[in-house]
Amino acid sequence: MSGPIEFFFDFSSPYGYFASFKVDELAERYGRRSVWKPFMLGVVFKETGNRPLSQQPLKGEYCIHDWERLGRYMNVPWTMPDPFPIATLSAARAFYWLDGRDSDQAKRFARAAFDAYFGQGRDISTVDAVVEIAAGLGEDAAEVKQAVTDAAIKQRLKEETAAAMERGVIGSPYFIVDGEGFWGSDRMWMIKKWLQDGGW
Amino acid sequence: MSGPIEFFFDFSSPYGYFASFKVDELAERYGRRSVWKPFMLGVVFKETGNRPLSQQPLKGEYCIHDWERLGRYMNVPWTMPDPFPIATLSAARAFYWLDGRDSDQAKRFARAAFDAYFGQGRDISTVDAVVEIAAGLGEDAAEVKQAVTDAAIKQRLKEETAAAMERGVIGSPYFIVDGEGFWGSDRMWMIKKWLQDGGW
Repeated sequence: MSGPIEFFFDFSSPYGYFASFKVDELAERYGRRSVWKPFMLGVVFKETGNRPLSQQPLKGEYCIHDWERLGRYMNVPWTMPDPFPIATLSAARAFYWLDGRDSDQAKRFARAAFDAYFGQGRDISTVDAVVEIAAGLGEDAAEVKQAVTDAAIKQRLKEETAAAMERGVIGSPYFIVDGEGFWGSDRMWMIKKWLQDGGW
Repeated sequence: MSGPIEFFFDFSSPYGYFASFKVDELAERYGRRSVWKPFMLGVVFKETGNRPLSQQPLKGEYCIHDWERLGRYMNVPWTMPDPFPIATLSAARAFYWLDGRDSDQAKRFARAAFDAYFGQGRDISTVDAVVEIAAGLGEDAAEVKQAVTDAAIKQRLKEETAAAMERGVIGSPYFIVDGEGFWGSDRMWMIKKWLQDGGW
């Protein structure tokens, strides 16, 4: 098989942010495409009974330390944003709107949105913030503003989230390759081995 | 610094089982000692609000698949035990009793107990099961039986669990090296890099 590496993430997920730096390189190395799929992690949490990591006693402190450490190790910008976590509906909708026209531009938007939130610590929950990020990539501000409240785009995000859950996506980031699911940025080594060996 | 790699685990933790195959090799490679420290994960769960992985909706299914996959990948025995999870007080007490006399024998016991539970699927929650495992390593059955109900040993396990929590142990496995904590068998690569680079 030679299907894509599907990369499921929420724009409010630190481990999703860290994975976003590595997923395309991984795909390229094994001659695969990457397909980026933002989804609503909050909807998944309702099913799994999970809560945002930073809101869990003890685990939260560990994770905040771990994110800083990962940023230093990977040599990528890291700012612990406040507020955190945030609603990322607008960002995900803008992504799918761009994706309908140009998946590369959608990825550029995703990287810029991740950078704004976790690299620079800017709140990206508002429509205005999302419009500004897209405008920075040459998009028409008025068009983006309309797109993120468009009924069809709203529906698309709902459907993508439902489809992700149906396929076993239980957290962010989550990857599906040739039908096999891998949860967590810590499992990218396993995807690599899986692709090298053709599964095991 | 050149302190030990402290390896915190619960005998009922699949990821602790997988880590147990690798921790001594990792320590040896970097000229460190490994110190094994079983603790009561259930006590930690009360603080963190966590539940055993297999009892969490969706996450449980993922993990059961992941454990099978890890067993195949690492080429180590894997049996999904039933019942799971179990109380591992007796196993942890036997460990600390042996550890007071001979830490290598305590590690041999830990490996044998992990193998009995996750390699062969044998219930190791009872005193009799724990006695049998220790007897298989040349220990006197009557002595072991007395040890696992000994007040001082019970107290030792309580203290080890409290000390682990105080030092930030939030799951199994968890590692502390030179004051830095690493959570999960998936983070052994990070310990390696940390030791190579002297932190970052």
